[in-house]
Amino acid sequence: VTRVAVLGAGLVGGLIARDLAAEPGFSVVAADLSQTRLDALEGVETRRADLSDTGEITRLARESDVVVGAVPGFLGPTVQRAVIEAGRPLADISFGPEDPLALDDLARERGVPAVVDCGVAPGLSNLFVGRSAAEMDEVAEAVIYVGGLPFRREWPYEYGVVFSPTDVIEEYVRPSRFRENGVEVERPALSERERIDFPRVGTLEAFNTDGLRTLLQTVDAPTLKEKTLRYPGHAERMQMLRDTGFFDRAPVRLGGVEVVPRELTEHLLFRSWKLPDGEEEYTVLRVRVTGTRAGRAVAQSWDLFDRTDVEGGDTSMARTTGFPCAIMTRHLASGRWNRAGVHPPETVGRDRELADAMIEDLRARGVEIVFREDDA
Amino acid sequence: VTRVAVLGAGLVGGLIARDLAAEPGFSVVAADLSQTRLDALEGVETRRADLSDTGEITRLARESDVVVGAVPGFLGPTVQRAVIEAGRPLADISFGPEDPLALDDLARERGVPAVVDCGVAPGLSNLFVGRSAAEMDEVAEAVIYVGGLPFRREWPYEYGVVFSPTDVIEEYVRPSRFRENGVEVERPALSERERIDFPRVGTLEAFNTDGLRTLLQTVDAPTLKEKTLRYPGHAERMQMLRDTGFFDRAPVRLGGVEVVPRELTEHLLFRSWKLPDGEEEYTVLRVRVTGTRAGRAVAQSWDLFDRTDVEGGDTSMARTTGFPCAIMTRHLASGRWNRAGVHPPETVGRDRELADAMIEDLRARGVEIVFREDDA
Repeated sequence: VTRVAVLGAGLVGGLIARDLAAEPGFSVVAADLSQTRLDALEGVETRRADLSDTGEITRLARESDVVVGAVPGFLGPTVQRAVIEAGRPLADISFGPEDPLALDDLARERGVPAVVDCGVAPGLSNLFVGRSAAEMDEVAEAVIYVGGLPFRREWPYEYGVVFSPTDVIEEYVRPSRFRENGVEVERPALSERERIDFPRVGTLEAFNTDGLRTLLQTVDAPTLKEKTLRYPGHAERMQMLRDTGFFDRAPVRLGGVEVVPRELTEHLLFRSWKLPDGEEEYTVLRVRVTGTRAGRAVAQSWDLFDRTDVEGGDTSMARTTGFPCAIMTRHLASGRWNRAGVHPPETVGRDRELADAMIEDLRARGVEIVFREDDA
Repeated sequence: VTRVAVLGAGLVGGLIARDLAAEPGFSVVAADLSQTRLDALEGVETRRADLSDTGEITRLARESDVVVGAVPGFLGPTVQRAVIEAGRPLADISFGPEDPLALDDLARERGVPAVVDCGVAPGLSNLFVGRSAAEMDEVAEAVIYVGGLPFRREWPYEYGVVFSPTDVIEEYVRPSRFRENGVEVERPALSERERIDFPRVGTLEAFNTDGLRTLLQTVDAPTLKEKTLRYPGHAERMQMLRDTGFFDRAPVRLGGVEVVPRELTEHLLFRSWKLPDGEEEYTVLRVRVTGTRAGRAVAQSWDLFDRTDVEGGDTSMARTTGFPCAIMTRHLASGRWNRAGVHPPETVGRDRELADAMIEDLRARGVEIVFREDDA
C-alpha cells in the first residue's frame, strides 16, 4: 500500500485528498489544524495537526511514502523544507512569494524529488510550455492567459472568489516581470489591457500580472508573458482603487487611530466578491508557444476550459489547482518521476510521455484541454 | 456708512467680504476663528471670533446694519438664529441639512428679513426658477442641472474640489427627493444618469442628487428635478465605491480597531480630488422652466457659465457662490428687499425687477448668464 500525507485540507487540499483516496492501493491521511475542515472530508482518514510545527510535519512525512503540500502560502517554505529534510517525495501547491526552487540543492543532496507550483497557473501553464518546448529546437515566444471567473456577471466587479481576496489584490499591486524580445521588463500590474475572445465565454480582458515565476529562469525564449483574464472593465476599476490608495499598506492616521487602507479594502471586497454557495464558475487557460522545429516556424496552443462540478460540489478553481497536484503525486509515488531536486512543472512537461499521460488524466476528470499546432 | 459683518472668512466668505468692501459707503468687518484666513484677506477689516459662540455673533450683529452668514454648514443654524434674534437683516450661504426656513416665524416676529441658501445651487437656481415662475400662470416643470468641474480631466475621477470631499460624498449617498408628474418620489443618489451636451465643455453626465430643498415647498409645479453634472463615468465610479461599502458610516472591526469606511475614503479622495493651485475650473448651471402664459405653452431656459478668475485668484466655485450672496446683501442693506421672514431665493426671484438687477450685477462680475424663451 502507498501511504500519502496531504498537508492542508482546505478547498484544494481536501479535493486532492479525496482524489488520491479513490486510487486503489493508496492510503491517504489528510492533516489540518481545523477540525471543521477535517470533518468536511468524507472517506479520508484525517489527522489534526499544527502545520507550522516542523516536528509535526516531519512525523507525518516519515509515516508516508509521498507527501502533498497544500498549505497557505506563508507556511509553504516550512512544509517544503521539513518534507525534503525527511527524505520524502513532494508535490506542492503552496503558492508563496519566495523562489520556488530555493530548496533545489537540499533536495538533490537528500536525493528527493519535489515538484512545486503544481496547480493551474503556475502549474499546467508551465507544463504546457515545457511540453511544447520539448518539441521545438528554439522557442521564440510563450504567452499565457489565465483566469477564473463566475458565469454570472454582477456589477461592478463581475468577479468572485471562494477564498480571501488578499492574494488577488496582491496580484494587482506587484509589478509584473516578463521578457520581451530578449529584454527583461517590469510593468505595473493591470497594465497593457487587451480584449480577447474565448469560445465558451465571450470577450475577456487580459492584463499584466506577475505570474511567470520559474519560467523566467527555465525557458530560454526571447519573449515570455503571462496575463490574467477578467471580464472587461474589472482591471480599470482595480486600477482606480489602487491609484486612489485603497490598496496602500502604509497606515493612515484617522481620528487618532492608524488604519491600513488595504485591510479595509480586503474586508469590503471580501463581501463584494464572495461567491455564493452553488454559484457556478469556470477556469480558462490559454498557452501559446511559437518556435522552430527542423527549420520550420510552428505555433502550438493549449486551450483549457473547466467549470464547477455541480454534482461533486467542487469549484473549478479547486479542480484545476488540485487535480494536477493529485496526478503528479501518483507519478511521484510510482517512481515515474524520480529526479532528485526541486522541479517546476515545465521540467516535468519536457518529459513528453509523462506530460501526455498527465493531460489524459486531467481529461478523464472532465477538464477540457484542446491542443493545436499550426504553421507560425 | 453701511456697516456689514461677514461671518466666516473661508474661500467664499472672503470673496464676499472683498466684494462688499469695494462698495462705496460700505464698512466691512470679516470675522473668523482662523487668523490665517483673516490674514489672507487684503483691504478688509478683520476680527478674530469664535462663531460657535452665540454671544460673539450677537455682538458682531449688533455692531452692524446687515450680516452675511458664510460659516460651515454645521454652524449655520447657530449663526442664523443669533443674527435674527439680534434683529439684523441676513444673507446666508451656510448650507446644512436642516430646513432652511425653520426660523421663518422668529424672523417675522422680529421683523427681520433673511435670505438663505443664497449661493449658486441652492441660490441662483432658485432665483431663476422664481423669476420664470413669476411670468407664468402655471408652471409645469422646473429642471435644474448644476456642476462645478476642472477643465483638465484627470483619470479616474475627472473631478476636483477646493474644499473637503465630505459634502460631495454626502450628496452621493443621501436619497434624492423630487417631484414627477405630481408625485413626490425618492430615488437613490447617482441614479438616472443621462448625457447632456454643453456648448463650452462638451458632454457631461447628469444624475440625481438631493438638491431641491425649499423649491419642493415653494413651487407649485407637478415636476421638479435637480441633477448634478460631472464628466461621464464619474457617477458610476462613485456608485461602485458606495455599493462596495466605502461610503459606509457603520464602523468595521479590523484587527481590534473600529474603522469607519467613509472616513478613510474621505481621506483618500481628498488627496485624489485636491485641485492644485492655479488649476482652472468652471461652473455650469442650466435651469429650464416650462409652463403656460395667457393660455400659451412657453419654455424659459437659463444657462450660466463661469470660470476661474485667474487674475483675481478666485475659483469659479467661490465666485458663483459668493457673488449672489454679496449682491443680495446690498439689496438688504438698501432696504430694497425688506420683507420680514426667512426667504429662499425663489421668493426674491418673483420680484422680477430685483431679480433682473441681480442678474445684471452678476454679469458685471463676469458671470455669463444666457436667458432664452421659446414656445414649448
